[in-house]
Amino acid sequence: MSYTPDSAVRAYIEGHRAAFLDDLVEWLRIPSVSADPGRAADVRRSADWLAAKLTETGFPTAEVWETDGAPAVYAEWPSGDEGAPTVLVYGHHDVQPAAVEDGWHTEPFEPVVKDGRLYARGAADDKGQVFFHTLGVRAHLAATGRTAPAVNLKLLIEGEEESGSAHFPDLVRAHADRLACDAVIVSDTGMWSEDTPTVCTGMRGLTDCQIDLFGPDQDIHSGSFGGAVPNPATEAARLVAALHDEDRRVAIPGFYDGVVELTDRERELFAELPFDEKQWLRTAHSHGALGESGYTTLERIWARPTAEVNGIGGGYQGPGGKTIVPSAAQLKLSFRLVAGQDGDRVQQAVRDWVTGRLPEGIRHEITFWGATRPCLTPLDHPALQSVARAMGRAFGQQVRFTREGGSGPAADLQDVLGVPVLFLGISVPSDGWHAPNEKVELDLLMKGVETAAYLWGDLAEHGRAR
Amino acid sequence: MSYTPDSAVRAYIEGHRAAFLDDLVEWLRIPSVSADPGRAADVRRSADWLAAKLTETGFPTAEVWETDGAPAVYAEWPSGDEGAPTVLVYGHHDVQPAAVEDGWHTEPFEPVVKDGRLYARGAADDKGQVFFHTLGVRAHLAATGRTAPAVNLKLLIEGEEESGSAHFPDLVRAHADRLACDAVIVSDTGMWSEDTPTVCTGMRGLTDCQIDLFGPDQDIHSGSFGGAVPNPATEAARLVAALHDEDRRVAIPGFYDGVVELTDRERELFAELPFDEKQWLRTAHSHGALGESGYTTLERIWARPTAEVNGIGGGYQGPGGKTIVPSAAQLKLSFRLVAGQDGDRVQQAVRDWVTGRLPEGIRHEITFWGATRPCLTPLDHPALQSVARAMGRAFGQQVRFTREGGSGPAADLQDVLGVPVLFLGISVPSDGWHAPNEKVELDLLMKGVETAAYLWGDLAEHGRAR
Ligand SMILES: [Zn+2]
Ligand SMILES: [Zn+2]
Repeated sequence: MSYTPDSAVRAYIEGHRAAFLDDLVEWLRIPSVSADPGRAADVRRSADWLAAKLTETGFPTAEVWETDGAPAVYAEWPSGDEGAPTVLVYGHHDVQPAAVEDGWHTEPFEPVVKDGRLYARGAADDKGQVFFHTLGVRAHLAATGRTAPAVNLKLLIEGEEESGSAHFPDLVRAHADRLACDAVIVSDTGMWSEDTPTVCTGMRGLTDCQIDLFGPDQDIHSGSFGGAVPNPATEAARLVAALHDEDRRVAIPGFYDGVVELTDRERELFAELPFDEKQWLRTAHSHGALGESGYTTLERIWARPTAEVNGIGGGYQGPGGKTIVPSAAQLKLSFRLVAGQDGDRVQQAVRDWVTGRLPEGIRHEITFWGATRPCLTPLDHPALQSVARAMGRAFGQQVRFTREGGSGPAADLQDVLGVPVLFLGISVPSDGWHAPNEKVELDLLMKGVETAAYLWGDLAEHGRAR
Repeated sequence: MSYTPDSAVRAYIEGHRAAFLDDLVEWLRIPSVSADPGRAADVRRSADWLAAKLTETGFPTAEVWETDGAPAVYAEWPSGDEGAPTVLVYGHHDVQPAAVEDGWHTEPFEPVVKDGRLYARGAADDKGQVFFHTLGVRAHLAATGRTAPAVNLKLLIEGEEESGSAHFPDLVRAHADRLACDAVIVSDTGMWSEDTPTVCTGMRGLTDCQIDLFGPDQDIHSGSFGGAVPNPATEAARLVAALHDEDRRVAIPGFYDGVVELTDRERELFAELPFDEKQWLRTAHSHGALGESGYTTLERIWARPTAEVNGIGGGYQGPGGKTIVPSAAQLKLSFRLVAGQDGDRVQQAVRDWVTGRLPEGIRHEITFWGATRPCLTPLDHPALQSVARAMGRAFGQQVRFTREGGSGPAADLQDVLGVPVLFLGISVPSDGWHAPNEKVELDLLMKGVETAAYLWGDLAEHGRAR
């Protein structure tokens, strides 16, 4: 297949690039940190700014939607074409916390362009990737001579993704009628690398919990009592050790029930990616690879469920030693889920598993923080093929397919709206999401604009979900 | 065996009880907290006070001995009898920290007598138990008409037991000539209960360490990398879980090498003690008993070596969840040792064991804080029999034998001086060592005085170590 870029699209984008970047910089200056209650006004300012900008872009409807937390932005631009498919773009306008003292070389909320990169908190995650749709739809109209997009275009840009999207499912349910669509396009992910554009076909789900173990009512002297009473730190550790078997498979009975296994075709496609494990380990800041036997690293992070210890604590953690049997210990565990797994069933499996494993004298409590569902679109889905084609035209090469190991609230859209979720992201692994010196590559950002410009026409022609 | 108390001893003690207690209260008012650098002057004041009081008691020699930390007190009272055995009493004049806000009902350094108990930090651990020797030796002289004790009596009262006795081994080595003796009497332990006077025959040793595990160079996202890289918190937990086998025996190869097993007679004696496990669990604030299979609770805490987790930490420990693979984790482990075990060998066994168990990508460091040797005196040792007899006379009943699960610097005396260590303590479990509302039972304290009064004559007659 050959990809034909559209010179009209390219010319339009080139002509509006400077103004587009000026606008994005203005938005990035708003420190919309949803996890920081002191930034609530900034999150609202960010929503208002975006709604105004979408109106200016041409969306006939652009509203700020209230939640019990931070506000979201909704916009709608009907196609006017009879039978046009409806597409909902998802992104978020809130950002992770950032402070110079975390290791930023410049102020995180004073965007700086240097060597073709735009540095700012939110540059890639997710304001840049939300914003490319504004210029994208204008380029689509300019190049096609249309006055409205070829699809019924809806945008839902939430305001608390970085603080857990606590109110997002309710928001989607409350507005399910207006959000009705044929497919969701999530612009909050990345692609393989600068040279290898890819389309993501799924995300892992997530459920995480805290397990508190209680032993003696207070820390007790290990000389007087040690060796004769159960120690909650020991028991916490024994739980963790029992999470995985010797093959590093999760050993909780029922955990793998329903898991959609990788197809041979997917394994082939993964294996064809220019994956350099040494390089990947550098990105991971890890000095070794370790995971479930029988799967490659990419398969492990994209397509296999996991049980991970995010935190463990108990007893004395200060300098030197302290000869105590601690009174309590705590685990923070997260479970990545893949298609076919059910968060509720996994939570129950974890609860059942813990309950049987603790000795007399150790009481426990488990608190799950919630569950995000996994999502997966089959490779041959027509809308997925449209995304791949649009991206191929922008990048001038055939795109490949990946998955995303992380988890996102996009899956709630899949659930509530009952439609497939597709991913369109141009961020690359070096962009530093959630880290100091987050940036976006300007060339890739403009490829995002171009992809968006091609996508609506392609989807209108080919992409309606079966 | 029947025990004959000495009416002259009792009369002398009764006549001097009030002044003795007044003096003790004065000493307890000095907050000699060795762990608090701000209290260094108080620790010195405590040493000076004690040296002056020992001079007043009649010791011809009473000196403050400097260390690189807090000062110790040394006193000496030669017998004058040809061939008299030499006994060194060990105790400490420093105390644990204490503050009303920890839960004290009265000021910890304003001693209060209530219901036959003297409440103050250090009342039992260890000022009260050091101080009973002053009236004890005077009663011994008064009742026997002697002008010097029947043994060459030496006292070494250190000033930093509660902060780890860092300089004690050096101090003992530096003064080994003057400290030379036939036996050490440690007055820094307790007995079974008010109704069951006991003599302790040994203490467990101790070696403790910190194990740091390093994984990724920084916390990394569990969605992007989880399941494919080693997690130091998981590996820390797997180490802990592997510390014990299913019988809760320590599973480190070589750990039990050389362990002196309990004799049948010792097990019988332990079993005869009025041990109420429910009551003991209340004291332990524990809701269950658990330990090495094949041993009773008392055997586990007194006569079996252990591996205990004092602290574990790694990754996120704040509220809620955080989906990371942590970059590091830490363990604080302590190993209680029993006679026959060697701290250095155990440390090496731990190092060897850890080294073989970690996957590629996890680096580790082990730091041992030091080692305290175990000590154990055979039941038939003549000096041990003397202590038991003296205590039997004071209490009017046959005393029983226990051991101490904790560890103390007394073992350094055993090592450097090459003599047996005996224990004479009248504290009971409810005295609250290291806890709020520490107290000593006044009746028991006076039994301690009386025991000391009988001991020197008995030792001179029967007790010379073979
Ligand atoms: Zn994001
Ligand atoms: Zn003590």
